[in-house]
Amino acid sequence: MKQSTVEIISLTADTVPYIFDFVLELAHYEKSPDAVITTVEEYISAFEQGLIDGHLASVDGSFVGCTLFYMTFSTWKGKCLYLEDFYIQSEFRHLGIGQLLFDAYIEKAKALDAAMVKWQVLDWNSPAIKFYEKNNAIIDKEWWNGKIYFK
Amino acid sequence: MKQSTVEIISLTADTVPYIFDFVLELAHYEKSPDAVITTVEEYISAFEQGLIDGHLASVDGSFVGCTLFYMTFSTWKGKCLYLEDFYIQSEFRHLGIGQLLFDAYIEKAKALDAAMVKWQVLDWNSPAIKFYEKNNAIIDKEWWNGKIYFK
Repeated sequence: MKQSTVEIISLTADTVPYIFDFVLELAHYEKSPDAVITTVEEYISAFEQGLIDGHLASVDGSFVGCTLFYMTFSTWKGKCLYLEDFYIQSEFRHLGIGQLLFDAYIEKAKALDAAMVKWQVLDWNSPAIKFYEKNNAIIDKEWWNGKIYFK
Repeated sequence: MKQSTVEIISLTADTVPYIFDFVLELAHYEKSPDAVITTVEEYISAFEQGLIDGHLASVDGSFVGCTLFYMTFSTWKGKCLYLEDFYIQSEFRHLGIGQLLFDAYIEKAKALDAAMVKWQVLDWNSPAIKFYEKNNAIIDKEWWNGKIYFK
């Protein structure tokens, strides 16, 4: 049986487009490609300005998943590294890659002296919720999201 | 009848402590003062690093409310100004100050070329939800928050 090599690497300006491709891939899968109105140039600009950062997971040299995060601020706790996106291509799930990506995210948050990490999960996504609970996360169910789109 | 003067001003390093005081005030009101583990120094540092920004509302020269926000990034829409905190002292509510603060926040988001704004509201907070709906906000109810505290 072939042994695969899994690697987790930090995002660079050169690899930002892979994250954008994963976002498009998921949007197509969800039949909402038109809902993605941002561009890869905006991703690169946000990365270069220090607004976003992330990790990529590779299997035998090919990227198969990612996390995208940025620093926010909790009025009660202080700095908070927020996980905006967490994606693994379907054929590479259940191999432990999600745990490696999540561990790298937690490590990064601690290295940046964040007091906490936060993210959102859809209420019907039981496998994801179980994964987070296994990682000792608190799941808060009483908040709704307000949004206004300008574009 | 005395006419009051209401002003909305941008946050400065000198006025950041007023926002911290509002946060403590609310935490005491909610009987959770010990849950606030951050410090005014962390607020000032976050402001000086460009991580947080906000507005203060004053009535006849006294601060009575605030917003606290920061830039985040939506993978589908691009830059998003996130409203972390929005507070008005109880005796100054229903005077239209909330609308002035919210308008200033929306204006700021547009000036920063954000594609959207986002925030959270507790599911039982009907007056706040009505306020946001009056402002043509979308209220998403299907997301849960995941969190891990380090401190």
